[in-house]
Amino acid sequence: MTGDQVTATRPQPDFASTFAGPFPAGPHTEHTERRLLGWLEEHPLLPSARTRGTLVNITSHGASRTFPTADAEALALFAELLLWLTAFDDVHGEVNAACDPASLVDRTSELMLVLADDNPLPAVNPFPAALRDLLTRFRARTSPAAYLRLTASLRDTLMALMWEAHHVTQPEKVPLTAYLAMRPHTVFVKTIMVAAEIVLDYELTDAQRALEPIRRTETAVANLAGWINDLASYERELARGPAQPLSLPTLLKVRHGGTIEDAFARVSRMCEKEAAMTRQGITHLTCDPPNTLTAHARALEGIVCSFIWHTGHARYRRNVDGA
Amino acid sequence: MTGDQVTATRPQPDFASTFAGPFPAGPHTEHTERRLLGWLEEHPLLPSARTRGTLVNITSHGASRTFPTADAEALALFAELLLWLTAFDDVHGEVNAACDPASLVDRTSELMLVLADDNPLPAVNPFPAALRDLLTRFRARTSPAAYLRLTASLRDTLMALMWEAHHVTQPEKVPLTAYLAMRPHTVFVKTIMVAAEIVLDYELTDAQRALEPIRRTETAVANLAGWINDLASYERELARGPAQPLSLPTLLKVRHGGTIEDAFARVSRMCEKEAAMTRQGITHLTCDPPNTLTAHARALEGIVCSFIWHTGHARYRRNVDGA
Repeated sequence: MTGDQVTATRPQPDFASTFAGPFPAGPHTEHTERRLLGWLEEHPLLPSARTRGTLVNITSHGASRTFPTADAEALALFAELLLWLTAFDDVHGEVNAACDPASLVDRTSELMLVLADDNPLPAVNPFPAALRDLLTRFRARTSPAAYLRLTASLRDTLMALMWEAHHVTQPEKVPLTAYLAMRPHTVFVKTIMVAAEIVLDYELTDAQRALEPIRRTETAVANLAGWINDLASYERELARGPAQPLSLPTLLKVRHGGTIEDAFARVSRMCEKEAAMTRQGITHLTCDPPNTLTAHARALEGIVCSFIWHTGHARYRRNVDGA
Repeated sequence: MTGDQVTATRPQPDFASTFAGPFPAGPHTEHTERRLLGWLEEHPLLPSARTRGTLVNITSHGASRTFPTADAEALALFAELLLWLTAFDDVHGEVNAACDPASLVDRTSELMLVLADDNPLPAVNPFPAALRDLLTRFRARTSPAAYLRLTASLRDTLMALMWEAHHVTQPEKVPLTAYLAMRPHTVFVKTIMVAAEIVLDYELTDAQRALEPIRRTETAVANLAGWINDLASYERELARGPAQPLSLPTLLKVRHGGTIEDAFARVSRMCEKEAAMTRQGITHLTCDPPNTLTAHARALEGIVCSFIWHTGHARYRRNVDGA
């Protein structure tokens, strides 16, 4: 039985009434794809050509669906950041890190020094230099505060990947509340939400950011992104073993008993609820004439569409290690 | 032989020509001390009354020497932050964390969620709530960018404490370059330099922050703070064992051979060199009429004075665990 067939038999969320596809890409997908390939020549983050191809493909098509109205330059920069995050997680995080958490701590600390704008250390791997390149370009196109929010979310992601690596071999011991709180930070959606303001060139005030409809909608988007990724990547992570995936279906099965299909059904309902909350928030926020809040709501909509879209990609449909 | 006598026989840096004491305190030391005791009633970070007394004493007197011109309210807030950092490091970091790095990762992740302004998790210990209280008050008194710089430096410190915990049992394996790069982030001086702008109510522009004399002087201050703390805390950390302290004298002894006295002599010369560089930077930056750069230079001067002052405190003179 292939991964496709296994996945097909499991309950999946129905987004027909909230985020119905197809999700159109913007005009810069191919340009982004070429830029990513060129950037990877300069920064060889991924050793295998097949991994490189799959990741460049999902990232360029995904980015183009996330921000279809972005200009070519901003979109390429955003896609490079997303590629960098995914590559770092694949190469140094996840199951690889579980065998050697101290090594992930060292790799992460090198990146922290880049985020802190310290003088460079001697390079052990290409990730710090690639990050420095990205940060220089992000800093040049945005305000000091927006840049600081981006680097804050990257620090949080690194911390969350470290948390994940320390627990991935014993997922059944992770409290559900802790998992739910950390998941938005391991799925990169927080960084994507912060990057939206830079890529699409708007900036919320702190007062707008604290508005209840904004917070509620961002929370729903963050949950939804993590949980649909958990459903999509479950088989791939199971195949990598040896433990059960550190993933919402695993934790709900521990909490409620039943089969893994029951857990998938629960997660699917949870996803549908967050999707409904997100749709409601977007509708509420976009009832005014175009302004910063409507721009942000449209960005959140694109982010959800791309997360739903990416679960159908070959990266998740094939049970191939590192693809 | 007591800790005092051991330390007295070891070479120590001579700051007579760069930062000669005594270092006068500002007028709010006792007010700060009372405020810290009250704050610890509300947030019971430290179980032992003796530890509490020692830490409140060094923190209030140290803070008052760091920023002698600060107003009472800002100084109390700064001292609370410093106390929070030191208490977290004493309770959850350092040698305690080496036995159980996963637990430090969990404690740190809870704090990350507070820094990310996520909804609170159920409280396991008092540190997250105390941090939330501090952040709320810092945010209220400063600009969004200054607040974000403060929270960035706190994230970096947490990351650095995690790095330290993963290496503290085998200090001889830590590359000297990595230690030198991480040390400013474990000694809290980066947070103190960032907090200066909030406490003393000035704000550098990004362009000013990038000026070569500012970067050079800040780097010298950061090195100096870590290294004089390494000399001062060596005996205390050695007594805590079982490994040699993860500290500059240990690493220089590994690198160059010789006795620990030889290593102390090397570190002392390195400290004197950084102190000279700092003094030169401060003199250069304060030759103009008062402006933001001179304010920052005076703040850096106070920071160095307080780091030199604090090495004479009972916390370091007595070989008492947790004191």
